Amino acid sequence: MQLESLKKLYLTELKDVYSAENQILAALPKMIEKASNQELKSAFGQHLEETRQQVERLDQIFDRMGEKSGGKTCEAMKGLVKESQELIEAGGEPDVLDAALIAAAQKVEHYEISSYGTLVTYANMLDQDEDADLLQSILDEEYATDDKLTALAETVVNIKAQRAGQ
Amino acid sequence: MQLESLKKLYLTELKDVYSAENQILAALPKMIEKASNQELKSAFGQHLEETRQQVERLDQIFDRMGEKSGGKTCEAMKGLVKESQELIEAGGEPDVLDAALIAAAQKVEHYEISSYGTLVTYANMLDQDEDADLLQSILDEEYATDDKLTALAETVVNIKAQRAGQ
Repeated sequence: MQLESLKKLYLTELKDVYSAENQILAALPKMIEKASNQELKSAFGQHLEETRQQVERLDQIFDRMGEKSGGKTCEAMKGLVKESQELIEAGGEPDVLDAALIAAAQKVEHYEISSYGTLVTYANMLDQDEDADLLQSILDEEYATDDKLTALAETVVNIKAQRAGQ
Repeated sequence: MQLESLKKLYLTELKDVYSAENQILAALPKMIEKASNQELKSAFGQHLEETRQQVERLDQIFDRMGEKSGGKTCEAMKGLVKESQELIEAGGEPDVLDAALIAAAQKVEHYEISSYGTLVTYANMLDQDEDADLLQSILDEEYATDDKLTALAETVVNIKAQRAGQ
């Protein structure tokens, strides 16, 4: 790989986030299973469905570019998923594990927020208006998911985790 | 490790971000060296100094808790640093590499924003007011760094990268 143009960098970032989304698709079912709080379970479930639709929107972009979506592994998401697996394996108080799962999921969301923010900027600079609209719609969803998780962390789960013992 | 209490989860997250910051300290000199744009070089340089001071503030928290700061490797940051190294090794047009370095650095910033946001919430719930103030001051700095990188991406570096060839 050589970064000879912004277009090449744009494609590289698209492949990175495509790999990231697919790793999230693979990791979410375990997080849904291990979450105790029903609102959290439901939020993760909705995000799984949303992620499937985001991957389809990325497929549209690759199709339009005539490029393949594969061939890159997102190393950062590998690390993020590994961290959430470590938390799940650690076990402990269900409410504390819920708080830990929220923290892990918010790190994942922030990775995506950063990636899609960059991609929207690149798409605009390259005059790829349709791409920019699709990527912006995904970015808006990631922000909304992060906000939902913040609300859950602050109101429901962490308060219980605190009661579970200091 | 067992997540038996919010306090234990708080300590685990603190150790995670301590490892993350130290990995950033190790990675930034190479990013400074490889950046071409002088404003970007300078922004990375300032962030290196800021990161050193953030580590010192984290040391204060560990000292107050009577806990060791080591013993955990932040797997997500390992992945993030690996990604930035891949970009550096890829080489190519200097302006495009600058854009790529900014994107990589913003992913790092977003990891930290998410971590410190979580830590401030936990510190408040555990009535650790001094910790909460220190962590909030770091969080504010991470947001400021991210904003600075966004401004650089949108105004200076990416426009040049675009001109370097589509």
